[in-house]
Amino acid sequence: MAELKNQKQPSSWKDVVNLKRAARLAAVEPYLELELPPTDPITDISDVDELAKLMSDRKVTAEDVVLAYIKRASAAHKATNCLTEIVFEAAIQRARSLDKYYELNGKTMGPLHGIPITFKDQFNVKGVDTTIGYVGMAGKPATDDAAVLKILQGLGAVVIAKTNLPQSIMWCETENPLWGLTTNPLNPAFTPGGSTGGEGALLSLRGSIVGWGTDIGGSIRIPSSINGLYGLKPSSARMPYQGVPVSTEGQEHIPSAIGPMTRSLSSMTTITKAVINGQPWLLDPKVVPMPWRDSICEEVQSRPLVIGILLDDGVVKVHPPIERALKELAAKLEEAGHELVIWEPSLHKECIDIMDRFYTADGGEDIRRAVEAAGEPFIPHVEGLINRGKPISVYEYWQLNKEKITAQKAYLDKWNSVKGPISGRVVDILLTPTMPHSAVPHRTCRWVGYTKIWNVLDYTALAFPVSTVSAEKDPIPSTLYEPRSELDAWNWNLYDPVTMDGHSVGLQIVGRRFEEEKVLGAAKVIEKVMGR
Amino acid sequence: MAELKNQKQPSSWKDVVNLKRAARLAAVEPYLELELPPTDPITDISDVDELAKLMSDRKVTAEDVVLAYIKRASAAHKATNCLTEIVFEAAIQRARSLDKYYELNGKTMGPLHGIPITFKDQFNVKGVDTTIGYVGMAGKPATDDAAVLKILQGLGAVVIAKTNLPQSIMWCETENPLWGLTTNPLNPAFTPGGSTGGEGALLSLRGSIVGWGTDIGGSIRIPSSINGLYGLKPSSARMPYQGVPVSTEGQEHIPSAIGPMTRSLSSMTTITKAVINGQPWLLDPKVVPMPWRDSICEEVQSRPLVIGILLDDGVVKVHPPIERALKELAAKLEEAGHELVIWEPSLHKECIDIMDRFYTADGGEDIRRAVEAAGEPFIPHVEGLINRGKPISVYEYWQLNKEKITAQKAYLDKWNSVKGPISGRVVDILLTPTMPHSAVPHRTCRWVGYTKIWNVLDYTALAFPVSTVSAEKDPIPSTLYEPRSELDAWNWNLYDPVTMDGHSVGLQIVGRRFEEEKVLGAAKVIEKVMGR
Repeated sequence: MAELKNQKQPSSWKDVVNLKRAARLAAVEPYLELELPPTDPITDISDVDELAKLMSDRKVTAEDVVLAYIKRASAAHKATNCLTEIVFEAAIQRARSLDKYYELNGKTMGPLHGIPITFKDQFNVKGVDTTIGYVGMAGKPATDDAAVLKILQGLGAVVIAKTNLPQSIMWCETENPLWGLTTNPLNPAFTPGGSTGGEGALLSLRGSIVGWGTDIGGSIRIPSSINGLYGLKPSSARMPYQGVPVSTEGQEHIPSAIGPMTRSLSSMTTITKAVINGQPWLLDPKVVPMPWRDSICEEVQSRPLVIGILLDDGVVKVHPPIERALKELAAKLEEAGHELVIWEPSLHKECIDIMDRFYTADGGEDIRRAVEAAGEPFIPHVEGLINRGKPISVYEYWQLNKEKITAQKAYLDKWNSVKGPISGRVVDILLTPTMPHSAVPHRTCRWVGYTKIWNVLDYTALAFPVSTVSAEKDPIPSTLYEPRSELDAWNWNLYDPVTMDGHSVGLQIVGRRFEEEKVLGAAKVIEKVMGR
Repeated sequence: MAELKNQKQPSSWKDVVNLKRAARLAAVEPYLELELPPTDPITDISDVDELAKLMSDRKVTAEDVVLAYIKRASAAHKATNCLTEIVFEAAIQRARSLDKYYELNGKTMGPLHGIPITFKDQFNVKGVDTTIGYVGMAGKPATDDAAVLKILQGLGAVVIAKTNLPQSIMWCETENPLWGLTTNPLNPAFTPGGSTGGEGALLSLRGSIVGWGTDIGGSIRIPSSINGLYGLKPSSARMPYQGVPVSTEGQEHIPSAIGPMTRSLSSMTTITKAVINGQPWLLDPKVVPMPWRDSICEEVQSRPLVIGILLDDGVVKVHPPIERALKELAAKLEEAGHELVIWEPSLHKECIDIMDRFYTADGGEDIRRAVEAAGEPFIPHVEGLINRGKPISVYEYWQLNKEKITAQKAYLDKWNSVKGPISGRVVDILLTPTMPHSAVPHRTCRWVGYTKIWNVLDYTALAFPVSTVSAEKDPIPSTLYEPRSELDAWNWNLYDPVTMDGHSVGLQIVGRRFEEEKVLGAAKVIEKVMGR
């Protein structure tokens, strides 16, 4: 005890930051190579099944794979500051034990044997901190693994690191006083998006093959869109949130969902199916006992789709490359025999107004307590958020929830009423922008209405890459655009085809509640039309 | 306008009561017969499919059936004061139009063609009030039907009346200043239970064949148990709550569920299946798109079950007839080859403490506003409820919800850990008391812990009749029972084998979330063992 007392205790939040960052640096340094080859036979593989097959065919060992990813993750971190908690040594130990298992049993431990996975620093990994971007959460290591990690580990996957997120997670960029700012892989002056921005940067630099994020307003889909990745926000009761602490935890009326981020659609389907078939309802009381339904995924691939096209949500107009990408894809879909209908943005603004009131129903108390716990400064966005409104009473909160249910019912009726002109069939899926822009400079993201609408409705939404910004194809329009609001003007004025050239353009495929199979099946149809 | 102004306006809540009761009397009177025969070939049929077949075979018309039920409902009302809003005339019109449809098309409108149904006065029926037992809700007729009514009407069912419930619905008995007190069919000094007590009395007197209630603490199962009926509380997202106003609406964290009450198990299965296969998720945004799964219902009937037996929740000991009925049934089940395990009541008290704090998180504001709207008096139970606690803040409310989720997770882990000693299989279902007593005198029900535990967990629970109190078989035990608390003593002292003789004794079959198919399948197995 005397010994413990004599240990130097961190005297301020800055000391905590220094200790945590020093530990992170020490973990990465051994794996930083002077020059990492631009291509690598292991990390170039984006497909989980393909990589798993390499291992099950004994062409490479789990240790080879894990080590290759550790090296590339270290390089990605050096370039973008994307990692937080690092468990490289434990990952290598586990890879070796998987290899030993294979030697002894002549077979893999499961379909994800040796597959490296990473997690937003919000998922519990036993023995390391779960910071959620707060200094005050440092030094309290998790005593158990998140439910989703248990399922994936049971299938043979290997966790190698956790990744950065904004203080409080309630922002679409990635910065906090504890771990610092994460930058965009293509341009350090640009954001990788957020809140699962560390995963976005890491995956796009091939430092991971499957990442996990959370999404209460777009936090999986935004960094997926900005970094050219696939990101799935399922309905909230489909995948297990157990063991994933969150800001404003207990709120639940606008539910956050966990979901995977990948570099290919096939990886996305493999991982989603694996987790859902891992019976997450036996680990998390909120998950609905609904196994993966192959028949739905197949059916939607067997016929022309009825697709609702939303180009503009009536609040913030999208940048020219996004409009172009959506129109090009719509034309191809029509040519391939699918039915398109215009999807009006009615109810979007009403829904978003309701959910904004939920975020701050406690007057910011939850986030304020968490920030003040260590005395760290507020990042400006968070400070704005917690000072946006006074707390409401529980009675008012219940009335707000009634408004939400009424809006959800109205949106359901709207969906039921829109049908394909030829087939007369109700709309299958929607195709919409994810963000009104591609990657933008740090601290300039403002409008997440294209993603958060699907959180208040708890619908399934998949972000997927479609195109890239082209200075040539996407000039500033010659006819002046008259913005509808200050917000609309702010976004429009961000557009710069020169600095944005080459950045990814993503879109969203949206299905109704618990339609993960339908959305992933439709994505396969759409990718085929795109020639992938 | 002048004309309207000159109309006599109700000057006090008592005038509203007089007007509403006069209208009710006028609706019932034409159908009150001097002497209703004790048996009747139509209303004696408890099985929905059997009654439907009579009509589809043209042995009776829909009008015959609806009229027979209207007469018996009127008699039941006279005896117990169970009805509130009455739509007999509309029901007869609809029955005639069903008969005409049959004549024209040579077939029924659907599998429930002509089946009379009734609803707790909480379900919207277009054109009549939904009072929830509040005077202040009178005079505001619903503009649309509840979603579940739409589904049932689409299958041919005919709504004939709505039934009584307590002021605020938050009580296990049935009394309010608007409609008065509903009494037990077997003894007017006894309660029929609540809050769906009007349905309980009506169904047991064969004034309805399918009733609908809501359940946030036992409100379907308690009157079912007391009146010898079947009552299902499904998981809350399985059946549509849309169009069913409720006290403390918007609360949602301890969800209320709608569910059917019937006079036979086969009717229960028919109706549950019909509603779930009516795609309620297209009408209610909260319902999970999960069709009826016959395979689960069949599988559980194909093998020995592992059944957890809970005899005592550790808080309030059940009366002797309930203990006897449960032990007798357990012995029969064991003899028939099923595996029994003791189910400990661990976590029950913790869960109940948490949910009690939800009920009054708003400091009673919701209920207080609704009662004060018309100036009616509080019934004593409701007055006690709303003065039980001060409102908490939204932040505290979120912390409370976190406690709830932790408790749900602990209960899930508990369930996963209990296995059959022979098969090693995890417990399939639980067999537990519904109430610690059979019917008791008015205003003496106090403990609903045996039912409400399944609301906080949102599990599936079916109340079903098992036995009756027997003054001979169930004497007051000769050895003195030492109650564990004042509450326990209160309940124990209620027991009177003489006045309770002949009253029904019910039990509950409990499954996990979304296990409606499993619970109804297991009920069939258990009824077979009981020789039904």
